[in-house]
Amino acid sequence: MKSKAVFYHAGCPVCTSAEQSILGALDTGRIDVEVVHLGTDKSRLPEAESLGIKSVPALVLDGQVFHVNFGASLSDLK
Amino acid sequence: MKSKAVFYHAGCPVCTSAEQSILGALDTGRIDVEVVHLGTDKSRLPEAESLGIKSVPALVLDGQVFHVNFGASLSDLK
Repeated sequence: MKSKAVFYHAGCPVCTSAEQSILGALDTGRIDVEVVHLGTDKSRLPEAESLGIKSVPALVLDGQVFHVNFGASLSDLK
Repeated sequence: MKSKAVFYHAGCPVCTSAEQSILGALDTGRIDVEVVHLGTDKSRLPEAESLGIKSVPALVLDGQVFHVNFGASLSDLK
């Protein structure tokens, strides 16, 4: 079964840079990658919060949250 | 040419968790991965600082620094 990676971002420069570098380095043969833009798709904010995401960009690997650098606080996206 | 990823950590629980998940997701067919334990190999602290690393764990992809969550400040490792 493939692993699942979800990259949450908000379109900020920090997010975009992290998206390109980190997602480009993942092994997509083993991992399904989904990108969620919380700035435009606010309907997924509750899901992000329930996962424990505090800021974007954040990478979630099989349910484990990794905050990457600091682009924007989730509370700024509401 | 393969890309280069260096994962700097200090053996803390946050570091170990990030190391296993993130390094396990990278495409090692395209990326050479090196792990540097700054807690035991303090001789590499100046290199980490010159890259712009402020805390560990940190993932450096082709020279670009991504701080992951927050394990320990670099200043605490000196």
